Amino acid sequence: VNRLIGELAKLPGIGQRTAQRLAFHILSVSDEEALPLADAIRDVKEQVGQCEVCFNLAVEATCRICQDGRREGALICVVEQPSDVIPIERTGEFQGRYHVLGGALSPIDGVDPEDLHIAELLERVSSNGVREVVVATNATTTGEATALYLADAVRERAQEVAVTRLASGLPVGSDLEYADEVTLGNALRGRHTL
Amino acid sequence: VNRLIGELAKLPGIGQRTAQRLAFHILSVSDEEALPLADAIRDVKEQVGQCEVCFNLAVEATCRICQDGRREGALICVVEQPSDVIPIERTGEFQGRYHVLGGALSPIDGVDPEDLHIAELLERVSSNGVREVVVATNATTTGEATALYLADAVRERAQEVAVTRLASGLPVGSDLEYADEVTLGNALRGRHTL
Repeated sequence: VNRLIGELAKLPGIGQRTAQRLAFHILSVSDEEALPLADAIRDVKEQVGQCEVCFNLAVEATCRICQDGRREGALICVVEQPSDVIPIERTGEFQGRYHVLGGALSPIDGVDPEDLHIAELLERVSSNGVREVVVATNATTTGEATALYLADAVRERAQEVAVTRLASGLPVGSDLEYADEVTLGNALRGRHTL
Repeated sequence: VNRLIGELAKLPGIGQRTAQRLAFHILSVSDEEALPLADAIRDVKEQVGQCEVCFNLAVEATCRICQDGRREGALICVVEQPSDVIPIERTGEFQGRYHVLGGALSPIDGVDPEDLHIAELLERVSSNGVREVVVATNATTTGEATALYLADAVRERAQEVAVTRLASGLPVGSDLEYADEVTLGNALRGRHTL
């Protein structure tokens, strides 16, 4: 039981107390209720790997999006993590393919270009008739730094490929009054014709 | 004392309990501490009015920004409330002038075009060599509806004047993972070349 509590407590956001509560819950339910969780953990670790092309999560050698012939190959959206693919898919606005970097550049934390899937991105960009790379890294310091680095790297490798960045501005439903000045400045600079 | 409590409780965000606490604080401090508040309220009501040109707050007939010859007259930023001028000024990105509507269109709440300073905006736009109207209403339903209404109205009145809208997108410092899909969709559609 102590080993179970210890393993549960390693999960993010789960402390010692919650781990205890979860462990005793698992002890109290029947085998049929508890074992599917164990199986699910084992299955996911056995079966889910990385897409060979874009490094998204994949059950086979390549992920579902890379396998889907209807997705535009000329458009590549670059994200930091596989979890970032989900919100972009949910918008229904993107019909291209993805490339998961595996993080963002952060020299302080020792994350250099070689630690991310940047070389593979440049390979894809220069070989495949790609028209545009949409950099959808986070709007954080490291995400912005990564975007600028990629813009330079892609330009050097394949001048004809456009590198674009997600718009920064007011989130939908927000009041001007509560906007921070950097975001509002971006919203002003990025204004578009109505 | 009850009258003071009653008046304080009319302020937004101040309930009966807080009003009581404030009233007893005012009773406990010296005249020199309490009376400046009374004077400040009286002065502000006496002296601060609306700018004749842009309906921003003004001590004289026109506001400081309208009086400032260095501000670009060809660029007008339309906001809902005088309080919205402050965050835009803080960005340091805007060198034009303002026009305060006094609210946003909302037929449900009975706010029609005639209730806002729209006629005066159209007057300014058609007479003064204005080049661009930046619509900086809130990113809310009523703010967006007002923006679309203004775009049509300005186009009808002065075809050569561009009507632009603040960018919608990721606020600075935010993670993709936590962005709502409408905002992220806007960020994708509004992407710009790096």
